[in-house]
Amino acid sequence: MPLDEVVSSGAAAPERGAEPAADLKRMFAAVRARSERLAAALTPEDWMIQSMPDASPVKWNLAHTSWFFETFILRRFVDGYRPFDEAFGYLFNSYYMQVGEMHPRSSRGLISRPSAEDVLAYRRHVTERIESLLESAPEGGEEDILSLVAIGCAHEEQHQELLLTDIKHGLFQNPTAPAVYPEPAPGGQGASQACDGWVEYDGGLAVFGAARGAEAPGAQAFDNEGPRHEAFLQPYALAQRLVTNAAYLAFMEDGGYEDPRWWLSDGWALSRQENWRAPLYWRQDDSGWRAYTLFGERDVDPDAPVSHLSYYEAAAYAEWSGFRLPSEFEWENAARGRAVAGDFLDDDGPYEPRADRRADDDGVSQLYGGVWEWTASPYVAYPGYRAPAGAIGEYNGKFMSSQMVLRGGSCATPVGHVRATYRNFFPPHARWQFSGLRLARDL
Amino acid sequence: MPLDEVVSSGAAAPERGAEPAADLKRMFAAVRARSERLAAALTPEDWMIQSMPDASPVKWNLAHTSWFFETFILRRFVDGYRPFDEAFGYLFNSYYMQVGEMHPRSSRGLISRPSAEDVLAYRRHVTERIESLLESAPEGGEEDILSLVAIGCAHEEQHQELLLTDIKHGLFQNPTAPAVYPEPAPGGQGASQACDGWVEYDGGLAVFGAARGAEAPGAQAFDNEGPRHEAFLQPYALAQRLVTNAAYLAFMEDGGYEDPRWWLSDGWALSRQENWRAPLYWRQDDSGWRAYTLFGERDVDPDAPVSHLSYYEAAAYAEWSGFRLPSEFEWENAARGRAVAGDFLDDDGPYEPRADRRADDDGVSQLYGGVWEWTASPYVAYPGYRAPAGAIGEYNGKFMSSQMVLRGGSCATPVGHVRATYRNFFPPHARWQFSGLRLARDL
Amino acid sequence: MPLDEVVSSGAAAPERGAEPAADLKRMFAAVRARSERLAAALTPEDWMIQSMPDASPVKWNLAHTSWFFETFILRRFVDGYRPFDEAFGYLFNSYYMQVGEMHPRSSRGLISRPSAEDVLAYRRHVTERIESLLESAPEGGEEDILSLVAIGCAHEEQHQELLLTDIKHGLFQNPTAPAVYPEPAPGGQGASQACDGWVEYDGGLAVFGAARGAEAPGAQAFDNEGPRHEAFLQPYALAQRLVTNAAYLAFMEDGGYEDPRWWLSDGWALSRQENWRAPLYWRQDDSGWRAYTLFGERDVDPDAPVSHLSYYEAAAYAEWSGFRLPSEFEWENAARGRAVAGDFLDDDGPYEPRADRRADDDGVSQLYGGVWEWTASPYVAYPGYRAPAGAIGEYNGKFMSSQMVLRGGSCATPVGHVRATYRNFFPPHARWQFSGLRLARDL
Amino acid sequence: MPLDEVVSSGAAAPERGAEPAADLKRMFAAVRARSERLAAALTPEDWMIQSMPDASPVKWNLAHTSWFFETFILRRFVDGYRPFDEAFGYLFNSYYMQVGEMHPRSSRGLISRPSAEDVLAYRRHVTERIESLLESAPEGGEEDILSLVAIGCAHEEQHQELLLTDIKHGLFQNPTAPAVYPEPAPGGQGASQACDGWVEYDGGLAVFGAARGAEAPGAQAFDNEGPRHEAFLQPYALAQRLVTNAAYLAFMEDGGYEDPRWWLSDGWALSRQENWRAPLYWRQDDSGWRAYTLFGERDVDPDAPVSHLSYYEAAAYAEWSGFRLPSEFEWENAARGRAVAGDFLDDDGPYEPRADRRADDDGVSQLYGGVWEWTASPYVAYPGYRAPAGAIGEYNGKFMSSQMVLRGGSCATPVGHVRATYRNFFPPHARWQFSGLRLARDL
Repeated sequence: MPLDEVVSSGAAAPERGAEPAADLKRMFAAVRARSERLAAALTPEDWMIQSMPDASPVKWNLAHTSWFFETFILRRFVDGYRPFDEAFGYLFNSYYMQVGEMHPRSSRGLISRPSAEDVLAYRRHVTERIESLLESAPEGGEEDILSLVAIGCAHEEQHQELLLTDIKHGLFQNPTAPAVYPEPAPGGQGASQACDGWVEYDGGLAVFGAARGAEAPGAQAFDNEGPRHEAFLQPYALAQRLVTNAAYLAFMEDGGYEDPRWWLSDGWALSRQENWRAPLYWRQDDSGWRAYTLFGERDVDPDAPVSHLSYYEAAAYAEWSGFRLPSEFEWENAARGRAVAGDFLDDDGPYEPRADRRADDDGVSQLYGGVWEWTASPYVAYPGYRAPAGAIGEYNGKFMSSQMVLRGGSCATPVGHVRATYRNFFPPHARWQFSGLRLARDL
Repeated sequence: MPLDEVVSSGAAAPERGAEPAADLKRMFAAVRARSERLAAALTPEDWMIQSMPDASPVKWNLAHTSWFFETFILRRFVDGYRPFDEAFGYLFNSYYMQVGEMHPRSSRGLISRPSAEDVLAYRRHVTERIESLLESAPEGGEEDILSLVAIGCAHEEQHQELLLTDIKHGLFQNPTAPAVYPEPAPGGQGASQACDGWVEYDGGLAVFGAARGAEAPGAQAFDNEGPRHEAFLQPYALAQRLVTNAAYLAFMEDGGYEDPRWWLSDGWALSRQENWRAPLYWRQDDSGWRAYTLFGERDVDPDAPVSHLSYYEAAAYAEWSGFRLPSEFEWENAARGRAVAGDFLDDDGPYEPRADRRADDDGVSQLYGGVWEWTASPYVAYPGYRAPAGAIGEYNGKFMSSQMVLRGGSCATPVGHVRATYRNFFPPHARWQFSGLRLARDL
Repeated sequence: MPLDEVVSSGAAAPERGAEPAADLKRMFAAVRARSERLAAALTPEDWMIQSMPDASPVKWNLAHTSWFFETFILRRFVDGYRPFDEAFGYLFNSYYMQVGEMHPRSSRGLISRPSAEDVLAYRRHVTERIESLLESAPEGGEEDILSLVAIGCAHEEQHQELLLTDIKHGLFQNPTAPAVYPEPAPGGQGASQACDGWVEYDGGLAVFGAARGAEAPGAQAFDNEGPRHEAFLQPYALAQRLVTNAAYLAFMEDGGYEDPRWWLSDGWALSRQENWRAPLYWRQDDSGWRAYTLFGERDVDPDAPVSHLSYYEAAAYAEWSGFRLPSEFEWENAARGRAVAGDFLDDDGPYEPRADRRADDDGVSQLYGGVWEWTASPYVAYPGYRAPAGAIGEYNGKFMSSQMVLRGGSCATPVGHVRATYRNFFPPHARWQFSGLRLARDL
Repeated sequence: MPLDEVVSSGAAAPERGAEPAADLKRMFAAVRARSERLAAALTPEDWMIQSMPDASPVKWNLAHTSWFFETFILRRFVDGYRPFDEAFGYLFNSYYMQVGEMHPRSSRGLISRPSAEDVLAYRRHVTERIESLLESAPEGGEEDILSLVAIGCAHEEQHQELLLTDIKHGLFQNPTAPAVYPEPAPGGQGASQACDGWVEYDGGLAVFGAARGAEAPGAQAFDNEGPRHEAFLQPYALAQRLVTNAAYLAFMEDGGYEDPRWWLSDGWALSRQENWRAPLYWRQDDSGWRAYTLFGERDVDPDAPVSHLSYYEAAAYAEWSGFRLPSEFEWENAARGRAVAGDFLDDDGPYEPRADRRADDDGVSQLYGGVWEWTASPYVAYPGYRAPAGAIGEYNGKFMSSQMVLRGGSCATPVGHVRATYRNFFPPHARWQFSGLRLARDL
């Protein structure tokens, strides 16, 4: 499930935090600028590509995030606001039925007009007017506006990750395997095997999810992260590290893709039909396995976490290994209280998962900044969850079927966007996200 | 997910109960006879029908349940056993890859040969040999054999329900709307509104699932009902009764099928694509709503529980009503300790859900014998669940993706087959089972 | 294109011949009896099978041919006629929109009721009433009635061929490869190579097609065989004999199925998609090529004509051979005046094409009774062709797109049904008819 | 069938005409310049659009026509030629298997790289080298080179028409209905009804097709236009003018799209499935029927020829009218000897068909420059046709199944590209060409 859908549906409306308006202005400016920086490495023609219905063109991602600010803030709170272009309401709506009709998702790649330049002008128009509004919020509406701007920023951050995963999928279709971003220098020295152990956790009742509003002022969370509630865990252990490419290759070489014993029934059927033999983007040549990355095609790094797996592949690997996937509660219990520190250098890259070369540690590692971790938990509402009213929460919970929860955060997730309670979700067949796994076992 | 798959995969291998061999022999004879009684109301040509890949022909159901006894018991425990027909191993295997190749599921309706008569001869052959074996179980294997016969009986009971739902779907395709079974006389008098209230339950830690083996000798359960484990519930209430056709009609008349607000995203897309406007089998004519039943076409009974809903429709109805679906734990918590007493007259009918006309009661009603109740719980493994080894458990857990749990039991479920811990499951789009819902709410 | 559609649409309404009423009665009785004789070798369960939408169940074929007599004769010419069963008008209509709604073609295999017995009773009912009518045709309508009975007989003869090709396809799905008819003793001795030469023909203007009505009283023809008209031919030669299995194997062994040079673009795409590697019904095992026949599976006879080819395969073979397919006019020009003598023993078999072992001859051989011969001619109207008015000719010409003409007649065609002007037609992908080819070349 | 395929396959290799090299150089320069002029009205992002697999992006059309010259001329005749970019051989091959692998047709719209600019550079590179070659053709090869350049020019002219019809289809997907070209001023005055009569033709033997090579030096024709041969015609009449939008509206208003009587069986099925209710590009609003054109959306002009019809619609209209479509021979017989004068102003427009306002005439009108005319003739080889050898003629005749011939030429066809013997062809469902019809009848 594209994060897009989540936020834009309001299903995951983040609680406005304690940021004073000034902080929010800084955040808004930074988020808007980052989207444009990501896109600037690409050509206007790259911005057109839609390589499957699940993915959207860069141009659409850039325009839709502006449409969101325009529709839910400018049109409602700016007297006499004149939309930049009336047609954009139709073209860049993702699916809000209360807001109006929308352009078919699968035809987003045909929108040559408006041009890239038009969309950048649209972005400037919206950015400036939101900034003006933040300078002088109309009385009474201020709280709402600040909250909605915070939501819009989180929404745009999610689209930044989609922009990267969508364009990676799009350019992968080009036989010339183009490089988009410069490859950073390799990280620090040191073996990555140092902390390949297990971390054990007691069972018992614990509290999960994010508090909202009065409960915990200042906390930032999407509404699907709440209500905070108790749940009961059995004792368990988690692998300290993510499953690596080397480990996954062992599964492949052991005939993992040819042995129905390891697979869920639906996954087996799909993998045969689609002829899966390796993670998405992998290709075998005489020299061994190569993978398409945003730096161009590269040798598969045995120490990097395996990525671009579907849930079916992650579950098959876990079954083969003799262990299992963790539940989302087991993951959150382990992540609670640990610092959000990933492999990412900063917000500008590297956009591909890398081997973890840091020194050993006494707890779980690689929680953020490498790959999203598939869990064994289907995506359902927490007890007591109710959708907020109104258009922005029009379809709360509407994606709560046939999706699995992923936890953590990937190399493509903005640094400020990750947290222990965050629930990402996608259907079990999705492979184009930076998605991998960590093993768990019973104690 | 066809129950078929569950049991035959061993995913739900029932624990052998405390039945002495004599009881098991009686049970075996009764189960075998009931399948043939159900089928006897149909013609050899009816036995051929396969109206969709999910459904199987009656002939196949009858043969496959015999193949199960032959493959897992006779071939293994009878020295020098000669199979009735070697080709049947291919034709009537449902999907055991370790056991061999199998006939494509979607082509089961093309099997004119073997004939109905041949299949009945096959059944007699297998029944007699199992009975002989039960007379004199070979030393050492007895425990196994008794356990496997009990599994085979449970397996065949599940196929009895499928036989009814599959043939209902098949004959529904015939424009003459044939009646299969005689309609029983209406039940007792009395309004059904008498107990349309809510029953409240405290939250807290409770124990769920079925104990196995040494833990609770004599208990009967499939393996997906265990391990017994603790889980934490919030306080909640359940509706005393199932949602009725009258109540569901109010949803329909309020435009429920045309309003995306109530629907899960996948459900909305599917309902538009398939043009759903009412439960499966319903048809509107000048006199109002009519429904195809196993007694022929009948007026929809406003007081009977609504049936033949997909999960998507059940969830949309719940959303529209302002309440919600219960979790499977909430249901089990309410059902625990209550007598298994349904609307069913007996094992020979009526095979269609009926209005509940019994006097009021202080707890939840209609738990069994009306319709299976969709819950909000995706079908996943209980904590600590591991699949048994060997061919019969070849694919344990392999259906644990993209399915929802149903609880209770329907008018088509054999009386002895239902219990509080039983977990039925189907994909959210399935409508051809006797499936309805009961509402829940938070306290 | 199923012959079914042609005749039942009236697109090919045969001219009533010169038969006196007595001859017609004899013909009617013989045709009706032959259908039942063909079906009697099959079980009521075999009669249910529909293995693809293009094919119809035996039961449907038997009922539909009776429906034709009932609808176009009994309902119109018998005062106070009471239909055997009103529901049959819906179930057994093939597509006449003026006559009413119809059951979906692809669901014909689900019609368990009416039973085989009911359908035979329906046949008797119709047969008796038509016979009564022929005894005493009402004044004024007699001509029409006789003509319509003749059409109905031709229609039923076409369904006899379909009954054989449809059930062959249906039973082929059964892994036990059932035999339906007894295999006749091999034919006479003698090499078949004796007349493997070419027969040359002059070009020039010639007259083609069948005269109708006043033009040529007594002639029997479908309306698509007229009007009789002139066309101009270049000098050409035809192969004396049909292409044999041995010759076709040479094409296969030369990589014919893997080489796009020989194939029409559509045919190449389809053959890759469907993974064609040999004619339909062929299977390779250790002993060589085997083919499913109505006598069960048999070794491929190298001297028999190759059969069950699509047009695409026939055209690819011709291209590979360096020759070409004949036009339908070249075929008719060669067949004109030659006796209708096929390989068939008689109307009761053998229903599979056989090697031609007759002595040499000075003209083309195997024109009838082996396989239908694909020609290079698309199926279009002859100059001046107009559809007859009324329901029976409702859609004249409606199949005249994307079909190719086949000439001759196969081992499954009734002996009295073939003639030099007969135009059979099917879409280029159809393989389940007894269809092969004869080569041609320019002079 | 995309003209693309025809020419690029060599199936329609035009005979080199009598042009001296100087004329050929002028033609080459003009053709190359015209492609770029057509594309210059569009943006680099417009050049990306591929709205269906049958259509290609503008960028691909521009590159593929250069690839053709590079592959078949420069690589073969220029010593030490270094291709502009080796990857282009894969990306811009349309399907020549002898020449190498190719990029999947349906993914042409994903090629953001090479950019528009790169493709223009590629064009310049190829244009300059072909011009150099024409200055000094290597000895011995000169004849071949001149002939191949002429073929390449004809090939590129066909792609110019495709460029227009493909981009029209692509931009039609954009809800803003963009205008591409300026609309020319309306043409001269005068009613168009003046010559709405019939023109009668005698039957008899006549000669059809184009002479080739030695037979008729200087003649230009594709090889599918030959051999020249005799055929026999019945007396017939052709409508003087094309069917207009007003006439077609009468068919629509008479329920033409809802009445299966008029339709070919395949056409009826497709029109229901696709929900056809009017020609492609038509849309009804409160003011009446509007149509998308390359000038933007416009009112439908009642006097202009109806366009964007499939063969099925053209045939249904003809059936409804009581007349019929002409054969390709009837059309050619009428066009023979008449001047090639169309409605087109010149090679730069108007690119949409217009009403014929010229004075009356004693023969058929609107033969060229309005719309391609569907004929009743399936596309098959002329008698004696054989494909040329070698890569350029690799698949001669490979499209000769399930396509219908269109005659004449449309508003999008280059002026110099039309002639009386030209055979265009497309499958019967194709609607995105400028395709209409003219009626015929028997005498």
